[in-house]
Amino acid sequence: MPVPRLKLGVAGLGRGFMLLLPTLAAHPGIRLVGAADPREEARRQFRADFGARTYAQVADLCADPDVEAIYVATPHQLHREHVELAAAHGKHALVEKPMALSLEDCQAMIDAMRRARRWLVVGHSHSFDAPYLRTREMIDSQGFGAVRMISALNYTDFLYRPRRPEELDTSQGGGVVFSQAAHQVDIVRLLGGGHVKSVRAATGSWDPARPTEGAYSALLTFNNGVFANMTYSGFAHFDSDELCGWSGELGQPRDPNQYGTARAKLAKIQGPEEETALKNTRTYGAGLSLANSQLPDSAHNHFGFILVSCDGADLRPLPHGVQVYAHTRRYLETLPSPEIPRREVLDELIGAIRHDRPPIHTGEWGMATMEVCFALLESARHGHEVTLSHQHA
Amino acid sequence: MPVPRLKLGVAGLGRGFMLLLPTLAAHPGIRLVGAADPREEARRQFRADFGARTYAQVADLCADPDVEAIYVATPHQLHREHVELAAAHGKHALVEKPMALSLEDCQAMIDAMRRARRWLVVGHSHSFDAPYLRTREMIDSQGFGAVRMISALNYTDFLYRPRRPEELDTSQGGGVVFSQAAHQVDIVRLLGGGHVKSVRAATGSWDPARPTEGAYSALLTFNNGVFANMTYSGFAHFDSDELCGWSGELGQPRDPNQYGTARAKLAKIQGPEEETALKNTRTYGAGLSLANSQLPDSAHNHFGFILVSCDGADLRPLPHGVQVYAHTRRYLETLPSPEIPRREVLDELIGAIRHDRPPIHTGEWGMATMEVCFALLESARHGHEVTLSHQHA
Repeated sequence: MPVPRLKLGVAGLGRGFMLLLPTLAAHPGIRLVGAADPREEARRQFRADFGARTYAQVADLCADPDVEAIYVATPHQLHREHVELAAAHGKHALVEKPMALSLEDCQAMIDAMRRARRWLVVGHSHSFDAPYLRTREMIDSQGFGAVRMISALNYTDFLYRPRRPEELDTSQGGGVVFSQAAHQVDIVRLLGGGHVKSVRAATGSWDPARPTEGAYSALLTFNNGVFANMTYSGFAHFDSDELCGWSGELGQPRDPNQYGTARAKLAKIQGPEEETALKNTRTYGAGLSLANSQLPDSAHNHFGFILVSCDGADLRPLPHGVQVYAHTRRYLETLPSPEIPRREVLDELIGAIRHDRPPIHTGEWGMATMEVCFALLESARHGHEVTLSHQHA
Repeated sequence: MPVPRLKLGVAGLGRGFMLLLPTLAAHPGIRLVGAADPREEARRQFRADFGARTYAQVADLCADPDVEAIYVATPHQLHREHVELAAAHGKHALVEKPMALSLEDCQAMIDAMRRARRWLVVGHSHSFDAPYLRTREMIDSQGFGAVRMISALNYTDFLYRPRRPEELDTSQGGGVVFSQAAHQVDIVRLLGGGHVKSVRAATGSWDPARPTEGAYSALLTFNNGVFANMTYSGFAHFDSDELCGWSGELGQPRDPNQYGTARAKLAKIQGPEEETALKNTRTYGAGLSLANSQLPDSAHNHFGFILVSCDGADLRPLPHGVQVYAHTRRYLETLPSPEIPRREVLDELIGAIRHDRPPIHTGEWGMATMEVCFALLESARHGHEVTLSHQHA
């Protein structure tokens, strides 16, 4: 008997949705049955693309009896409210990272879904990318010995891409700690064992015109003795895609001869209003639609340079597989190119709802990742080490 | 009027000396006039190579009236005693890194040379490598704006090269913190501004057969707001020379197809005695001499991947120059290949003694670097942050 498609409603037709749209549309286990967004043009586009019901309010989407699960892709600060709405209507939820902007909110979301006896999955984050999941499997199964140390570096022009003012305001969930550390922490926790013990970090807010954290460096220790360094710069001129075979974050081929384009484009823009306007011409229903969200013929997604040092080998997840540096030989364990990029997050959601397979990226998992992100900000702000207490593997 | 050559005496004809020997022999400003070493075969070789006087005792070398300066390349734990001897005889001193194994020893060395009114230079370390010195000059002169963040990664097979037992014993100055962090800290301090404020670090002693720190990761904050991450693994299977154009630490071309050779060779050795014996067949006077210490036709020395993030550019010192990633363009500021590799350390020594040019790498500088190394060990051992108080730019 075939497993029926999961009837998914989308809360928020913004950038998170656009990034997952090709996957949502192509995944054989998913049917998009509804959406909520305050923008009429986004709702119109959704109806045109999917012939599905749309709502101005997330509450109305959650109340739709045909919806089984809500994909919460609204602004970060609304995640709690929308997950609680989903729970109140007995829907499962997939919530985008960052899960929420406080531990209290994360806990409330977990509690609400637990009371409702529904599944909560947190993603997409790059820790769902096949090379990281495969690296974790190899650590567990291939006798490379204990994980000891992890290095993670990512240098991008994140801060110079078109942004709305709230994306440059940490109190509203802006800046690279919420947007980008959430990925890097998720990956490092996946590979390092989950239970982070302490965080010491420094952050950089170096451009008064972009007044939020654009860079950080952190040292993490884990309960199991693993330690990890994580460094990110969204102010970067160097591009760490160079260390990933010039494959981009989304698996797309990068042209090494393109240089400095984000800053060059931004320099032509006059002020934040024009920047917001520009960004708004590139949202779903205004310039973007299903038709121009093609599945790229691409490598796997990635999040920069990652190296896992085990006793028996160093493992380096790459866009085309996992490079293994073992005692006597070095080889690439190739992964076939993704037919549906980012499908892993939906597979995990469907696995939980249809097959009762506990997901990796539960609410508790997501909260533990956010605890590290909050600790990173706190450590940097106060200049001391932060010890963690909500960790979960 | 030509400047007379500096008449240098070498204390310790071990590995430090072998690494500097081609430079010492080729440098037009240096004349090797004496040496001290307990091994008769080393002394015999030195007499054969340089027609110079040799002594079993460093004290006798220091008493030689023809010697102007002592190059102290004896085991780490003897540096203090030998610098004090040099000072007592009114000689200048160049002391190998690590400067000494305690802050007290470092301070005593500084005080002794100050009382004697003689110059003390600490090196060679890789912070003397031309690409790092040039990066520092470019930061100071080329309008790239403030330094903000530094990343330093080095992955080597350091711990699996032939070692004597004391090199695997931290209390005797063994392990990668004394041997290798001393380089990395020197470089990061040179580029970051010198004054480190705090250190949080973790170290790894992962192989019971090599019972010392073989890896570390550290987060440094500086008084000027710069922060830096430094990661080293001497247990590595991955080789970060890959990130340096397959040019080796000494500037030699590396063959990317050679893999795992250090572990393979070590696996054939039966026990520490044989390992020590093997190592002793490759020392000066026993297998090695001036004749087989050719100056390689090579690129500059390096110490792994280093990236300095400034407001206006990321700077990446490389074996052939400094890669500049600026706002609108990316270019390699090339450095001519070194005619005499590592000459910078002798230039600094001669500059001080002959021309009264204050060296960068003074005793105070070296002590500040060692304070960071000690802090790194302390932070890792006790799991807390260490605040510094002997920093010096």
